[in-house]
Amino acid sequence: MFDLIIIGGGPAGLTATVYALRKRLNVLLITKDLGGKTNFRLQLPDVEHHLVINGEEVVNRFVNEIEYLDFSRVMDKVEKIQKAPGGHSVRVKSGTEYLAKALVIATGANARRLNVPGEKEYMMRGLCYSAVSYAPLFIERNTAVVGDAGLALRSAAELAQIAKRVTLVAPTHGELDSALGKRLLASSNVVVLEGYQVQRVNGDDYARSLVVKKNGDTREIAADAIFVELGLDANSDVVGGLAERDLEGRIKIDARNRTSAPGIFAAGDVTDAFAEQVLISIGEGAKAALSAYEYLLGQPVEEPVAAGEWR
Amino acid sequence: MFDLIIIGGGPAGLTATVYALRKRLNVLLITKDLGGKTNFRLQLPDVEHHLVINGEEVVNRFVNEIEYLDFSRVMDKVEKIQKAPGGHSVRVKSGTEYLAKALVIATGANARRLNVPGEKEYMMRGLCYSAVSYAPLFIERNTAVVGDAGLALRSAAELAQIAKRVTLVAPTHGELDSALGKRLLASSNVVVLEGYQVQRVNGDDYARSLVVKKNGDTREIAADAIFVELGLDANSDVVGGLAERDLEGRIKIDARNRTSAPGIFAAGDVTDAFAEQVLISIGEGAKAALSAYEYLLGQPVEEPVAAGEWR
Repeated sequence: MFDLIIIGGGPAGLTATVYALRKRLNVLLITKDLGGKTNFRLQLPDVEHHLVINGEEVVNRFVNEIEYLDFSRVMDKVEKIQKAPGGHSVRVKSGTEYLAKALVIATGANARRLNVPGEKEYMMRGLCYSAVSYAPLFIERNTAVVGDAGLALRSAAELAQIAKRVTLVAPTHGELDSALGKRLLASSNVVVLEGYQVQRVNGDDYARSLVVKKNGDTREIAADAIFVELGLDANSDVVGGLAERDLEGRIKIDARNRTSAPGIFAAGDVTDAFAEQVLISIGEGAKAALSAYEYLLGQPVEEPVAAGEWR
Repeated sequence: MFDLIIIGGGPAGLTATVYALRKRLNVLLITKDLGGKTNFRLQLPDVEHHLVINGEEVVNRFVNEIEYLDFSRVMDKVEKIQKAPGGHSVRVKSGTEYLAKALVIATGANARRLNVPGEKEYMMRGLCYSAVSYAPLFIERNTAVVGDAGLALRSAAELAQIAKRVTLVAPTHGELDSALGKRLLASSNVVVLEGYQVQRVNGDDYARSLVVKKNGDTREIAADAIFVELGLDANSDVVGGLAERDLEGRIKIDARNRTSAPGIFAAGDVTDAFAEQVLISIGEGAKAALSAYEYLLGQPVEEPVAAGEWR
């Protein structure tokens, strides 16, 4: 039986694993990949990334450490988590079942897709799913944002501070009546295309334009970068029936990254914690591991306890 | 008037400042130093630090960035914060008063001292105030921990997993009756010296022993490292009367690093958030800056809004 199983190898899960290893817990990381979203960087012509992307060097160091300590990981997909005596069981796709006293869920979230031609081809090549990390790159450039809820409006507002022009493609009226929506509508460098649907993404080596349509009106919007801001879907189904989730499906956590299920902790984009920044996920992963460690320290053990048998 | 004033230049405050600068806020960092606790590293004979200390490279990069952008900082001590029209005023020791729409308090915490001869001399040279970061270094070594509350007991338990011997100097009975206290008392490699007071720290280039005394009994305890775990005092007096604090004086924050005072945010060791790790403070600083940014985005502005006037 493991002390701790961590599910998911993005920034939060990697950090939790490294912290747990340093606490000398008997730990297993189960993940489909190492690095998570840091493996996907927006590629743009003529842009230096080191200016805006933080935390990658930390993630890379942790990836190296875990690749070196290969006993500590299984590359597989988790299919089911169930309560088991003394903890939980975790079944993976290949059929194996692992037992642990505590779990950290760090399975992340996926951005909702447009599902139009050209999207896959230009994904991270001029088209991406979060303006928040990249906005500083677009001084005096043309950008397009797709979406009509708070996330899209905030991205458009942030880009409007620096970009030459922001075209907001709002498929419905959405939250355009909010204070922020009104400011966007009144702004001199924002064009709001309400009721338009995205038809396709065009480009060469990089995405260069969006084709949008409203009834009979079809337009092509040129942009140096296109941000699809339709929201995130948390990959939280593995804790269905075990831990509480909010209305958007994110796992609810407290200040110590505990879920409503004793022994199950969560960190990063799968939770209802704030913001999707890599450095924030790293901090959340560290908190989850230390919180699980304290939980394990409080678990009953046989006495007397000898050196090296503190778990 | 600034958009945002950040008080404190440790990991949380530095990160908040860099994030705020990247959001193109009109920002000012007021601090006595840059780097905070990362300037204090435990020095030990024959030990490689890169194995255990995380986040320093991120902090160093942020220090460099802020040193370069010298318009963004004032090296001074904050004496008083008061409500002012549209935000708060911040008065520093040299007498100047700065105004801002929002504040991030990242003033950290100080470890309680022993106040005995030798303490200052050997501080961070074999003697330090948090085992949690350094425990992995002490495989098969002798260590001493001073304190009798939960913090000291947890540090002793963590060291007991790997160290050859842990001597816990408990000035009073404290929490020795807790489950953890009982496990320590039963452990074969932990010696608990209850009711002993520390008299002095002895050493050569590094701390080598603690002199402790109980009534007439004086003992000298040799140790490769000495951890003083008497607790932390949050530097939260600047928000006295403005924002709620817990019983230990830490500023209460929610999941978005908001305090009970609108427009005042807080991050890092000054708050009631979990754990004192550098990587956690970095994540908390990023969250506080982004939360303040969203707060500012929601603040009223004159319309219509032109490009570059989004604040």
